[in-house]
Amino acid sequence: MQTHIVHAHPEPQSYNAALTRTAAQALRARGGTVTVTDLYRDGFDPVEAPRHYHDRADPDRFAALAEQRHAWTTGTLPGAVRAEIANLEHADLVILQFPLWWHGPPAILKGWMDRVFVSGGLYTSRMRYDAGYFRGRRALVSLSTGAPAEAFGPGCRGGDLGTMLWPVHYSMHYMGFSVLPPFTSHGVQGHGYSYEDAQAAEDRLTRNFATWRRRLTALDGDIPLDFPGWSDWTAEGRPIAKGEDALAAP
Amino acid sequence: MQTHIVHAHPEPQSYNAALTRTAAQALRARGGTVTVTDLYRDGFDPVEAPRHYHDRADPDRFAALAEQRHAWTTGTLPGAVRAEIANLEHADLVILQFPLWWHGPPAILKGWMDRVFVSGGLYTSRMRYDAGYFRGRRALVSLSTGAPAEAFGPGCRGGDLGTMLWPVHYSMHYMGFSVLPPFTSHGVQGHGYSYEDAQAAEDRLTRNFATWRRRLTALDGDIPLDFPGWSDWTAEGRPIAKGEDALAAP
Repeated sequence: MQTHIVHAHPEPQSYNAALTRTAAQALRARGGTVTVTDLYRDGFDPVEAPRHYHDRADPDRFAALAEQRHAWTTGTLPGAVRAEIANLEHADLVILQFPLWWHGPPAILKGWMDRVFVSGGLYTSRMRYDAGYFRGRRALVSLSTGAPAEAFGPGCRGGDLGTMLWPVHYSMHYMGFSVLPPFTSHGVQGHGYSYEDAQAAEDRLTRNFATWRRRLTALDGDIPLDFPGWSDWTAEGRPIAKGEDALAAP
Repeated sequence: MQTHIVHAHPEPQSYNAALTRTAAQALRARGGTVTVTDLYRDGFDPVEAPRHYHDRADPDRFAALAEQRHAWTTGTLPGAVRAEIANLEHADLVILQFPLWWHGPPAILKGWMDRVFVSGGLYTSRMRYDAGYFRGRRALVSLSTGAPAEAFGPGCRGGDLGTMLWPVHYSMHYMGFSVLPPFTSHGVQGHGYSYEDAQAAEDRLTRNFATWRRRLTALDGDIPLDFPGWSDWTAEGRPIAKGEDALAAP
């Protein structure tokens, strides 16, 4: 099994960095190969912008998707994007590792999606969702939060992680990935748990590495998250009512 | 009324840019003042990173929130962040204008939140949600989508906009804003509506400017989105069960 980890944390000594190292070690120990893209270390530019396109489809007016399609066709995609596409094409499993910032991934990872999921190349109006480019591959979000687990859930102060991660998960589903349930490491930023002293926190976070290793050795038992696909929609993209025919899968 | 528009689109001739100009004109015509931050034009760097902090709390290990708190206290926040905080402090209404990319705002706007919503300065563990720094102010998301309106909704191919926008909306709520229902301009990217010819699309998008102007002149009739606040949670941040006492508001 080949795994590609996309790592999005600015500090090499961070807990997120340790989770990425833990995953790479655990997966290699099982005989798999692992590639890691450290977006901060690589200075990845997350801003989709004219500056990345040197052979423009329309030099006067920048439309991101049109330029992506043109660059794919003409072989003029930016080097960082080409490198990431190659990493994804080799991977059976993609792990996105990040700290939860403002109810989602840090900008550097959001922009990885904005730039790397190339229109016309990795998806089209028909090559997406369960007919997506990466169908048959798996994706897994591993995130850290500052607040304790107790603060998350529907109506909770921290909000519901399922809702919060929906944009990331559905984007991976759009690309064809089977999306596994996320791995969440709570109470990492030092807000901590109010009933917990420093030693207890350290012990908990140390134990969490073993939990992460165990999770990674048992992924085949995971049931992917349930998202709708082509057989669930009408031609207009609405849920099929009872007795209605699905659009034939593309 | 003072309005601050945060504009996140790479192309000055885009429909998003026209929406921002329309909003600025409509609000000024009513006697309001308007500031606009054009993140792309300004070359805003959305990556929260050590390079922005020259007087570090911990030079050896970068923790974003700790450095934000330190920079706030010592008056060493980056200039772009200070400027945006000033714009927000003057505004009664904040409009976020962006195209929907991968089920959320472009990275440049996500990173605006990562960097500008400064820990310790604009929020603390108690100064947030309905006790947030910007309480009494309003926020409004105006987004464009490529797909037609029909493709959006629960279970629909495009997904549910309420879910998709939750991370942005709840982040604004976290900062204390009353979040108004979003203004959505569908079918902008040229995917268009399959039953619509080019002229019909242009007419529809032209009419949409008038809808946007009307919306902006009638904001006082808007009912803000409903998010939970301090009176809804226990001390641990869980929804209060019947008969249970709320945590006293901070």
